Amino acid sequence: MSDSLVKRLFDELEALPLIDPHTHINPHAAASKNLADIMGYHYYTELAHSAGLAKEKIEEPGISPKEKVGRLIPKLSTIENTAQYSWLLEICQEFFGFEEDRITVDNWEKLYDQADQVLAQDDWEQQVLKKSGLEQVYLTNDFDDALAGFDTGLYVPCLRTDDLVFHLGKSEVRERLSKATDRELGTIEDVQAAIRDLFTHFTKNGARACAISLPPDFSPTLVSANTVAASWLRLGNGEKLSDCESRELSQFIFWQLAENCAVFNLPFDLMIGVNRRVYEDGVFQGQDLYDKRTSLIQYRQLFNSFPRVKFPISVLTTTSNQELVSYAWIFPNVIANGHWWYSNTPPYIETDCRTRLTAIPQTKYVGYYSDMYKLEFALPKFRMYRRILAKVLAQDFVQDRGWSENRALELGKLVLRGNVESIFGG
Amino acid sequence: MSDSLVKRLFDELEALPLIDPHTHINPHAAASKNLADIMGYHYYTELAHSAGLAKEKIEEPGISPKEKVGRLIPKLSTIENTAQYSWLLEICQEFFGFEEDRITVDNWEKLYDQADQVLAQDDWEQQVLKKSGLEQVYLTNDFDDALAGFDTGLYVPCLRTDDLVFHLGKSEVRERLSKATDRELGTIEDVQAAIRDLFTHFTKNGARACAISLPPDFSPTLVSANTVAASWLRLGNGEKLSDCESRELSQFIFWQLAENCAVFNLPFDLMIGVNRRVYEDGVFQGQDLYDKRTSLIQYRQLFNSFPRVKFPISVLTTTSNQELVSYAWIFPNVIANGHWWYSNTPPYIETDCRTRLTAIPQTKYVGYYSDMYKLEFALPKFRMYRRILAKVLAQDFVQDRGWSENRALELGKLVLRGNVESIFGG
Amino acid sequence: MSDSLVKRLFDELEALPLIDPHTHINPHAAASKNLADIMGYHYYTELAHSAGLAKEKIEEPGISPKEKVGRLIPKLSTIENTAQYSWLLEICQEFFGFEEDRITVDNWEKLYDQADQVLAQDDWEQQVLKKSGLEQVYLTNDFDDALAGFDTGLYVPCLRTDDLVFHLGKSEVRERLSKATDRELGTIEDVQAAIRDLFTHFTKNGARACAISLPPDFSPTLVSANTVAASWLRLGNGEKLSDCESRELSQFIFWQLAENCAVFNLPFDLMIGVNRRVYEDGVFQGQDLYDKRTSLIQYRQLFNSFPRVKFPISVLTTTSNQELVSYAWIFPNVIANGHWWYSNTPPYIETDCRTRLTAIPQTKYVGYYSDMYKLEFALPKFRMYRRILAKVLAQDFVQDRGWSENRALELGKLVLRGNVESIFGG
Repeated sequence: MSDSLVKRLFDELEALPLIDPHTHINPHAAASKNLADIMGYHYYTELAHSAGLAKEKIEEPGISPKEKVGRLIPKLSTIENTAQYSWLLEICQEFFGFEEDRITVDNWEKLYDQADQVLAQDDWEQQVLKKSGLEQVYLTNDFDDALAGFDTGLYVPCLRTDDLVFHLGKSEVRERLSKATDRELGTIEDVQAAIRDLFTHFTKNGARACAISLPPDFSPTLVSANTVAASWLRLGNGEKLSDCESRELSQFIFWQLAENCAVFNLPFDLMIGVNRRVYEDGVFQGQDLYDKRTSLIQYRQLFNSFPRVKFPISVLTTTSNQELVSYAWIFPNVIANGHWWYSNTPPYIETDCRTRLTAIPQTKYVGYYSDMYKLEFALPKFRMYRRILAKVLAQDFVQDRGWSENRALELGKLVLRGNVESIFGG
Repeated sequence: MSDSLVKRLFDELEALPLIDPHTHINPHAAASKNLADIMGYHYYTELAHSAGLAKEKIEEPGISPKEKVGRLIPKLSTIENTAQYSWLLEICQEFFGFEEDRITVDNWEKLYDQADQVLAQDDWEQQVLKKSGLEQVYLTNDFDDALAGFDTGLYVPCLRTDDLVFHLGKSEVRERLSKATDRELGTIEDVQAAIRDLFTHFTKNGARACAISLPPDFSPTLVSANTVAASWLRLGNGEKLSDCESRELSQFIFWQLAENCAVFNLPFDLMIGVNRRVYEDGVFQGQDLYDKRTSLIQYRQLFNSFPRVKFPISVLTTTSNQELVSYAWIFPNVIANGHWWYSNTPPYIETDCRTRLTAIPQTKYVGYYSDMYKLEFALPKFRMYRRILAKVLAQDFVQDRGWSENRALELGKLVLRGNVESIFGG
Repeated sequence: MSDSLVKRLFDELEALPLIDPHTHINPHAAASKNLADIMGYHYYTELAHSAGLAKEKIEEPGISPKEKVGRLIPKLSTIENTAQYSWLLEICQEFFGFEEDRITVDNWEKLYDQADQVLAQDDWEQQVLKKSGLEQVYLTNDFDDALAGFDTGLYVPCLRTDDLVFHLGKSEVRERLSKATDRELGTIEDVQAAIRDLFTHFTKNGARACAISLPPDFSPTLVSANTVAASWLRLGNGEKLSDCESRELSQFIFWQLAENCAVFNLPFDLMIGVNRRVYEDGVFQGQDLYDKRTSLIQYRQLFNSFPRVKFPISVLTTTSNQELVSYAWIFPNVIANGHWWYSNTPPYIETDCRTRLTAIPQTKYVGYYSDMYKLEFALPKFRMYRRILAKVLAQDFVQDRGWSENRALELGKLVLRGNVESIFGG
């Protein structure tokens, strides 16, 4: 296989405008304001902390953005080997005119100032969208987000439901739901109505997905309103639920979400496998890990019960990838979605991408989403994926199967963009 | 590593006549009659269904074979990327003179007719055996198969025992066993005698293996006849067994099989890890999936108790492969067997093949079996394996270890054929 | 990527003097005396047994070293494909002037005699240390080892604690502990004091780590002295503990070890995942296997409770590797350590090395340890690792990231040696 073939495929894939189907972008502040917005991404704070920088230094209240960056910089030398660092370097090189190959204690201040200049431009948000080839950016909205004040054609709402499923036992979450839907939530039927209201609100505002992240031990199952009705009343009276009752309530709400996805024709993004706050003293967003002992068999009843709901599924570990491949191969409503978090480094992406492309219908693999908090990250993250995708297309399809370059490219475009449109709606 | 080295190794491996040690061939109808026999293989129906074709369309009663193929064809474009599709294409090219690189709505009828012509030849079965280099084809026979009316030297019987272990609670299975052995099955001792009769019948007819597929949670253990004697009587009286009693009966029967394998000197093929009917509305044979949370530690007592029984083991997932490598490395009676079902695509085969070849005694890895239902699939499936085997031999042995090409080839021939003979009997 | 780049990186890595941070070397008999010492390594006896050689033949009491080797030799032809065999061959070629590429029934006696001559040299131990580039060799010492009579600057003591954690229920282990610390162990407080004595003794003698191997189902948790005090008294009275009480005692002792590691500033090597004596009739040291269903989540409380203790962690299977990568990425005190046992063959090392190098701070991966029982094994085992490391550096860093050769080499040296010094102490 020639390197020039990979290069040509990569260049063609680079030219394709993107829809990014899962991000954490705040549409009111989509682009970074300074280098601290970029280096404050948990990937850098958690890795610097992992390499020995105290959390108290990183998160000291009141320090300036520049001070924060200045504290992280010395630790960068210990994480230069990581893929995560390569995203940062590529951002600095592509957007801020940085020409060196390491960010050091000697050159960072100049870089910081260059970044300030670039990011201060009035039209920077438009510039970065254009340079990154981003046509649409899907959001992760809290259920009580007003979805107002931004262009929902560009920044596409998605209903994030972790709070509803796992934190409705907290009075503040119930109050947020009550307020968002303008309903008293005295009975479980009120909750059902409120959830329906949320779907109405979100789909009216162009939402394209319902989404949730799930712990490794979650097993959705049908729980009736009757089963949880009494628990709900007790919650309203300020009582605490037992673990079992809480689990039932979670399962009930989850099932309600799936039912509404069916009614409102929304894909239900499942991000399976994360345990929250495993490292309790970790930095912000750098505390979550997992138990790899989880299985898609836990979703058997769900997949069978909602044949018309599309389930784009992200798995946290490569050891779950073959299950995802097999379940997407058998279940019409299971779709392999992107390369998530701890599996979002090149060696895992390559294995997972290759195994999917050679076994699942090509219409059922959404190649990539950035999961970004700031727009600047789409370019290096998608580029990492495009490099790998080009390599797999060259090796497994052009070389091993004798496909024409053009045919391989069509497959690449399908997983990179076409499937986003067909699965989440054009 | 030069591509020409891989090519030379591949060509030499292609020339080796094969024994296929696990298939689902019906010896009375071994070859396909038409393209529907080929495209009716569950790999195509389940992938077409996964890509959106309704089960009712695929399995409508009374449609002609050509109509069935015609309904599947439009969905082929969505699965062209899969390894499974590449087998189909290779069959059409090798056997039916198909010269295009895609089967489409425009060219399929001509292909269908070409296939009809080829498959209608009187000696097609002999032709396909010869073209595929097949010297022997092992079968998967129901325990009550008469094993008559075919050449058991060519189509080698194997005693499949899923029904005995998991379905003896059903009266129709007990009746089949009673009829096959001409015994009343009043007591558990009668069952023991009946099972012994089956082994006598099968070994008299040249059987080379006892085989079973097992769910992920199965743990064989010694259960005495006394333990299940009362349950058996209750079954005979039309009563139902509890889950626990059913499990004990399964374990009892399984242990009986292992004991008979020891007495009759038969390898016991274990195919570990499949859950049946996970997708209840799936197409025929397209409903089974798995829970990857299984371990060979569950077979600890079995492997220790039957040191003289060879256990060729197939695992369903690549996450179980390292256990298989390690257990085959330690236990003399554990043998790594082929690349099964959801692990039978090139990326998984390559990893699993490479890890086995570099850690297990070379005499303890049976490289491949086709698992086919129709003879035409041996050629593309074995060829897929031979391509990967040639690559691994070239990279890991000729290149990395400095082996001569010839020595690498000898290793390849051993796992592809020699071990089948030494393990299952020549 | 050019092969010559890999070769240059490999050659540079070969020139780096080593500290081997985990071995089973007996400092009073560090080098082999004859070929039987080398071929008696469990890797060869267990593989020969796995390939069919009876345990009784291998372990017959009273046979001479040469007779033992003579019995193993005929089985070598069945394991020539393994990485384990390649270490043996490389030892014979590098140290004993063996010039053939297979050890056979025809050439072994000459080899045996050549080895005898070489190994009989007075300064062989120094020679092999020098030829292997070994500057320091860490040991695995029983808790009651006197640590006397050898150079602890060269052979660095490490406190192995399996017996304390898992076998203190046995009176002989309690007696060993009593004798080693010259204490009566009447109360649980006595045990705490005795353990502290061990740490004092070991650190006074230059110990650099506390180490333990753990079964897949072990979950450390804080157990107070009060909880186990009564159990301890009953043990002293010759009573047996229940499984639950034994587990509590294990957890109590384990937690004591961690507390002492904090006090004495010793890294705590955790080797996670092995089940002992799974194959009960296996050869010496060839009986252990595992259940892959284990997770680092079981160590959550430990990692959170001892932020200042470094935990270099070895996992037994590649299916646990991604957890190790992720936990080392998040927890400052979790370090990825080497490539252990069933994961110590090239395909697993390559995947595990690559995924670590691209996601963990480069200061938190200890590249390799030999785990050897005799000094001769350091050379081929480290060389196997260096080949893979050179390949990963060339591909993933020089080629894919555009790093200079020199920068890639610095990274290689860091994981091969620098991190051993910074983590275990210079």
